[in-house]
Amino acid sequence: MEVRADLLISLDGFATTTDQTPEIPFGPDWSRLVSAYVATRTFRERVLKDTSGSGTTDMDDEYARDYFANIGAEIMGAGKFGLHNFPEDPNWKGWWGDEPPFHYPVFVLTHKTRPSIELSSTTFHFLAAEPADALQRAVAAANGKDVRIGGGPTVVRDFLKAGLVDRLHVAIAPILLGRGISIWDDMRGLEAGYSVRSETAESGTIHLTFER
Amino acid sequence: MEVRADLLISLDGFATTTDQTPEIPFGPDWSRLVSAYVATRTFRERVLKDTSGSGTTDMDDEYARDYFANIGAEIMGAGKFGLHNFPEDPNWKGWWGDEPPFHYPVFVLTHKTRPSIELSSTTFHFLAAEPADALQRAVAAANGKDVRIGGGPTVVRDFLKAGLVDRLHVAIAPILLGRGISIWDDMRGLEAGYSVRSETAESGTIHLTFER
Repeated sequence: MEVRADLLISLDGFATTTDQTPEIPFGPDWSRLVSAYVATRTFRERVLKDTSGSGTTDMDDEYARDYFANIGAEIMGAGKFGLHNFPEDPNWKGWWGDEPPFHYPVFVLTHKTRPSIELSSTTFHFLAAEPADALQRAVAAANGKDVRIGGGPTVVRDFLKAGLVDRLHVAIAPILLGRGISIWDDMRGLEAGYSVRSETAESGTIHLTFER
Repeated sequence: MEVRADLLISLDGFATTTDQTPEIPFGPDWSRLVSAYVATRTFRERVLKDTSGSGTTDMDDEYARDYFANIGAEIMGAGKFGLHNFPEDPNWKGWWGDEPPFHYPVFVLTHKTRPSIELSSTTFHFLAAEPADALQRAVAAANGKDVRIGGGPTVVRDFLKAGLVDRLHVAIAPILLGRGISIWDDMRGLEAGYSVRSETAESGTIHLTFER
């Protein structure tokens, strides 16, 4: 059982982009940050349900396959669930639609808990908990499989700072964003206790892994 | 003729360290930032005058050899020359000693010019000039060879922002420093107009190159 986190970041460490608008919720910067990942066959099959066999199959795809492998539960921030959009609406079920892509228990960190929601094969639980306590819940639910710290980046940072992440993989796109939330903010000395390795895909993406 | 810059940085972009003291002018963080570079055979031969054949000879050494190749002149900040140590002493000749390792004309950017200094086969000229004007002087002095923008990082950033650098190589050590001067600060969009490539050495150092 490993506690894992995966993020897509820019060379300057930014895991979020800031050019979103209500009309373009992710923005053009985000498109560039994720372009190598969404080009993979695994992303096309798993997320876009494209079974035509298109998509890249090199190193980026190996990491994409690994991303989806052996996860038994996930912890995410309220922002990733979409709680901030309608915080006062008890019927709001997040922005992942009727068939969320998780297919395992998801623990959403929030200050204000609410009843769990079951959507297809994904159940969302809402926890007002410190990282270690939330992790204990997720580990129990994961049934021996790995637990993903799913983001956003501030949530991943919180778990990294608490020493709770066994494996951090960042896919670094060869672009400079200059603004957003940096995964590296206040992370001095993170490498202690990890072995760090990196390799570069044909897309130019640097895959960097911190592993205990 | 290319205008080149080479820097050693951490994963979080820091090209300087902040734990210097008068007694330990570079500090332990700096040692970790440069460790793969100073381990190379080229560094040992060129800088330490160690001709015993010791030192690494893999990718880190290839970049080290390239670092020293075909430079005809250099532009550096006053800090790299050491001007800040004794700014009011007209006889202060910087901290590079009687035989500076440059062996070509060096242009030191400063607000207060002073007469040129010749030390062995290196001549230091002092310019109060904008990047483009300083570069014009250096290109003329380089006699067809490349010009190095030698740093510190703020000087390299100034030349990058002015669009004057043809090739930027950063050797990224797999450590997080959390403080210092970041080469990526305010560098949004730098990749436009460059091709970016990266590869990882056995030491874990990521060699990232922006080239026109």
